[in-house]
Amino acid sequence: MKSIEWIDGSVRLIDQTKLPLEEFYVDTRDYRVVADAIRTLKIRGAPAIGIAAAYGVALAALESAGSSMELFLQDVGRADEELASTRPTAVNLFRALDRMRLILGKADSPGRAKSLLVEEAVRIHREDETMCRLIGEHGASIVPDPAIIITHCNTGALATGGSGTAQCIITTARSLGKSIRVYADETRPALQGARLTAWELMREGIDVTLITDGTAASVMSRTHVDLVVVGADRIAANGDAANKIGTYALAVAAQYHGIPFYVAAPTTTIDPELDSGKLIPIEERSAEEVVEGFGKRTAPPGVRVYAPAFDVTPASLIAGIVTETGIHSPPFDFHGLRVPASVKTR
Amino acid sequence: MKSIEWIDGSVRLIDQTKLPLEEFYVDTRDYRVVADAIRTLKIRGAPAIGIAAAYGVALAALESAGSSMELFLQDVGRADEELASTRPTAVNLFRALDRMRLILGKADSPGRAKSLLVEEAVRIHREDETMCRLIGEHGASIVPDPAIIITHCNTGALATGGSGTAQCIITTARSLGKSIRVYADETRPALQGARLTAWELMREGIDVTLITDGTAASVMSRTHVDLVVVGADRIAANGDAANKIGTYALAVAAQYHGIPFYVAAPTTTIDPELDSGKLIPIEERSAEEVVEGFGKRTAPPGVRVYAPAFDVTPASLIAGIVTETGIHSPPFDFHGLRVPASVKTR
Repeated sequence: MKSIEWIDGSVRLIDQTKLPLEEFYVDTRDYRVVADAIRTLKIRGAPAIGIAAAYGVALAALESAGSSMELFLQDVGRADEELASTRPTAVNLFRALDRMRLILGKADSPGRAKSLLVEEAVRIHREDETMCRLIGEHGASIVPDPAIIITHCNTGALATGGSGTAQCIITTARSLGKSIRVYADETRPALQGARLTAWELMREGIDVTLITDGTAASVMSRTHVDLVVVGADRIAANGDAANKIGTYALAVAAQYHGIPFYVAAPTTTIDPELDSGKLIPIEERSAEEVVEGFGKRTAPPGVRVYAPAFDVTPASLIAGIVTETGIHSPPFDFHGLRVPASVKTR
Repeated sequence: MKSIEWIDGSVRLIDQTKLPLEEFYVDTRDYRVVADAIRTLKIRGAPAIGIAAAYGVALAALESAGSSMELFLQDVGRADEELASTRPTAVNLFRALDRMRLILGKADSPGRAKSLLVEEAVRIHREDETMCRLIGEHGASIVPDPAIIITHCNTGALATGGSGTAQCIITTARSLGKSIRVYADETRPALQGARLTAWELMREGIDVTLITDGTAASVMSRTHVDLVVVGADRIAANGDAANKIGTYALAVAAQYHGIPFYVAAPTTTIDPELDSGKLIPIEERSAEEVVEGFGKRTAPPGVRVYAPAFDVTPASLIAGIVTETGIHSPPFDFHGLRVPASVKTR
C-alpha cells in the first residue's frame, strides 16, 4: 500500500477518506488537486503531506508555460503559497516546501528548474521511506515479546512515504518474530484508527482490537499494557509533541498507569525553532467533521463545537522519541537539530 | 421533556435513539416492548431504566389474564425475568424490580396485585423525580460562579424520571443565577453527549460546547476548568463508580490537572452489597455500535472490537458523590446504606 506515488510526471494518491470500504485513486497533474487532497484529508499524516506538497510544487513547475525565469517563479510561487496554506500543524509540509524553494534557487532556467524540482520531490519521498525503515529498526527494541500495545490515529504506510512511523515499529517488531497485540483507538472525529490503522494492521496479519478513544484508559486498568506508541505532527525543541487530538489524554492515562509512552517520527517532524509545544499552531477543523462525519447528523442543529485537530503532549509524559537517528531519551533538546541553513519554517 | 410516562395503563417513552433529529414516541401496553426499548437504548440512563422496568412489570400485571394468583405470578415472573436480563450494569434496574417483587408479595389476589404494582411503579417514578430535584439542590453548592464544567454522556431529564442527576446540578446552579459554560463529551460510541446532552442543555438555554471524548484532557490543559461532574450506573460500597465508558479517562485527566471530579446519582444507584467497583458487572455492547453506528460502516469488515459500555472510576479519583441525601465526601462507605431488608440485587 502506497499513500502517494510519482508516475511519469503525475501524482497518484489513494483517497483515504474512502478507505477501508473503497480503494479509490486520484491521478492528477494539477497541484490544486493535490492541495485540495491535503486540505480534505484525502492524504494525511505529517510525512505524507510533506511529500504531497513537494510533488505539488513539482506538478506546478511542469505545468508552468513561463518561458522566462520570472514568469516561471510566479507560477511556482503561487503553488507554494497555496500548498503552504492547506494545513498549519505538521511541520513536514513546511520543511518540504522549504527544500523545494532552496532547490529552485539553484536553477537558472525553467527547464533546469523543472528537472531539479522533480528530482528533489522524489528525493524527499525516498528519504522518508528510509527514515520509516530506520524508525522501525530502532524502535523495535522498545517492544517486549510478547507485547500489548496501544496506538492512536494512523501512523502506517498511509501516513508516510514508507512503512510508517509508530506502526513501522509494530510491524518491524512483528517481523522479528515478536508476539504482538495492538489496541487501536478509533480516533474521533475522522476515525483514522478505525478506518486506516485497523485495516492496515489486519492486512499485515497483526492482532488488532479496535476501541473507542475513551476506552483506552479502561484497557490500561483492566489489562496489562506494555507501551503506548504514537506518531507526531510537530515536535518542539524541548520534546513537546503535537499529535492527533486524543493523544494527550492517552499520555496522561499512560502515566497514571505507569505505562511508557513513546512518540515515533522522522526528524523532519521536529521543529527546533519552537522552544516549546505551546508555540505549535493547532489547526481547528470544521464542526461538521464532529456532528455529521458519517452521513447522518448526530447533534442538534446550531450546536457549538470545539474541534482542534491536534493536542500537545508535554515532554514530561514522553518516555522516548524514536527517530531515524535512534531513540532519544528525556530530557529532550532538539535545538541543535541540523536543518538546512536557509530554511525558515512558517 | 419526559423520558417516560405512565398514561392510563400504558407507557409512553421517547425513542432516544432518534434524538435529536426526530421526537418519536413509543406508546405500549406490552412489557416486551419496554424490555426491548431498554435493550436497544431507546430508553437509557440508570434511573430511567429502573422506572421503565417497574412500569414494565406493571404492564405485565395488567396484561395477565391469570385468574388464580399462581397463574398471575407466572405471568409477572416471566416479565420480571425478561426485564432483569436487558442490561446488567445499572443497579437501579434490579432495585426497581426488587421493589415490585416485594409489593407483589403483599397482594392476595391478582386484582389487588395489579393496583399495588401500578401504584408502586408510579411511586418509584415520583421518588426519582424528587431525588433528582434534591441532587440538584445539594449539588449546586459545588458549582462556583462563574463556572466551566465538563460532563460526559447524558444525565438529564432523559436519563431519569425527573430533571436529571449531574445535569440537574448544572441547571439548578444556573437557575440560581450562576454563569455556567459546559463542555459536553460526545460520548462514543452511542453519542449520548452529542445527541442528548447538547440538545437538552441548548433547550435549557445553557452555554454548551460539544467536544469529542479525546478533547476533554486538552480542554483542561488549555482552559481553566472548574469541575467535572458525571452520573453513575452503579456505585460500590467503597465509592467506586461505574459510568459510561470514557468516564474513567476523564477522571484520570481531571486528577492530573487538579480539577475536582464529582459523581451525582440517587442512592438507588448505590449497591452496598458490592465492596468495590471490581465486582460491578460491566456490560459489553455489540461491535456494530462502534463500527456501524451511524448508517455507514467505518471500519474494515471482520475487525475485532472491544466495546464495554461502562468503566469504573475508583473512589480515589472522586472528590464527592452527590445524592439526594447530600454531598458525600471521601472516604466513602455506603455499606450501611438502608436497603429494604429482603431486597437482593442480582
